Amino acid sequence: MAGHEIIKKPLFTVDSVLFTVHEDTLKVLMVKRAQQPFQGAWGLPGGFIDIDLDQNTDMTARRKLADKTGFTPNYLEQLQVISGPDRDPRGFSVTLAYFALVAHQSVASHIDSVEMACWIPVSKLKELTTAFDHRQIIELSRQRLKQKTLYSLLPVFCLPQKFTIGQLMAVIETIIEKPLQRKSLMRRIEASEMFEISNEKISSGGRLAQLYSLKLDANIVNFERNLSI
Amino acid sequence: MAGHEIIKKPLFTVDSVLFTVHEDTLKVLMVKRAQQPFQGAWGLPGGFIDIDLDQNTDMTARRKLADKTGFTPNYLEQLQVISGPDRDPRGFSVTLAYFALVAHQSVASHIDSVEMACWIPVSKLKELTTAFDHRQIIELSRQRLKQKTLYSLLPVFCLPQKFTIGQLMAVIETIIEKPLQRKSLMRRIEASEMFEISNEKISSGGRLAQLYSLKLDANIVNFERNLSI
Repeated sequence: MAGHEIIKKPLFTVDSVLFTVHEDTLKVLMVKRAQQPFQGAWGLPGGFIDIDLDQNTDMTARRKLADKTGFTPNYLEQLQVISGPDRDPRGFSVTLAYFALVAHQSVASHIDSVEMACWIPVSKLKELTTAFDHRQIIELSRQRLKQKTLYSLLPVFCLPQKFTIGQLMAVIETIIEKPLQRKSLMRRIEASEMFEISNEKISSGGRLAQLYSLKLDANIVNFERNLSI
Repeated sequence: MAGHEIIKKPLFTVDSVLFTVHEDTLKVLMVKRAQQPFQGAWGLPGGFIDIDLDQNTDMTARRKLADKTGFTPNYLEQLQVISGPDRDPRGFSVTLAYFALVAHQSVASHIDSVEMACWIPVSKLKELTTAFDHRQIIELSRQRLKQKTLYSLLPVFCLPQKFTIGQLMAVIETIIEKPLQRKSLMRRIEASEMFEISNEKISSGGRLAQLYSLKLDANIVNFERNLSI
């Protein structure tokens, strides 16, 4: 590392791709940019580290998401660093992209109250004017989510605290864009030991459906094989 | 993103954990630090982006490794971003850690000529004074390498261009710290379609061993199941 040289520092930002599933549609949280660059275009929620507030980049991501949604996401992980001289007109820039999941219900009312934040169906993104390389970052995240959904039960983080197997199945099917066998999902749910059976049932399609919830100490189990679809 | 505010920027560095296997030992490239902070301690090869030279962080990592080894690594991937107010005495710092592999033979002569760079057996790291949180970053990388070795043939990047199955097996066994069945490795080699049989053989333990090499257009295949060991 250079000791006493003067270093031209790149811009460093943290941006989050927050997904949810709502009405059988995969949606991503986008923010209409109030300032330059890309004023008026839709971008990912994110920004600069506040070195007085944040202990690390995870906290930057959570803080910026809480600003827009009133909520920190149920799941958050680093996706990738993207960098280059041309992605930001202000100069060489580096962004750490996070990928995150939340239940639509948890944040719906807050988002409705923030004029500049909106859930956009991923399939409609190409119709919007988007900022920076955020559309490519969303596509990378979508691929990661799809891939992880084949070998884990990650989509549970798009559901409310109590959910039915039918709801979990529907969310997974929306993400992988393929139908699923209920039997093979049930086997995974049991093998994962991630869930507990609630003492409540809800009415679903004329019968009572069991409600499940994530155990407090649940680890996200990665299966050795992808889901057979 | 803040538009016209004055932002206190964190330090941003790129550091690489370059592994090789030599004499049945997993080794990591360390550099004795010539300057403060941590002058005289051993650290990872890395440093600041040069925004006039580098097109992105991958190029920063490759350039810094080439400085120390005379070579760019056979394999390089992003590991993780680590950040915080206390990891660097100069202030809040963010580092993007890469994890990389190289054949010992490719870089041995150059490294011998650079006084400040040295291959250190990973098992001996605790005996050294190390800089920053670099020891933890190396441990994270070692776990990633071990995990990936269970479902891919990544350790081939620690071998010279032409190698025997025995050499590949030895490198894998060093990384996973367990013996391997030759048969199951052979099945993976065939299934991967990553290699071609060279028209050369070398003498190995009293018989002739076939030499293999990586195909030019080889993709790194991830197997659905971990190696059975």
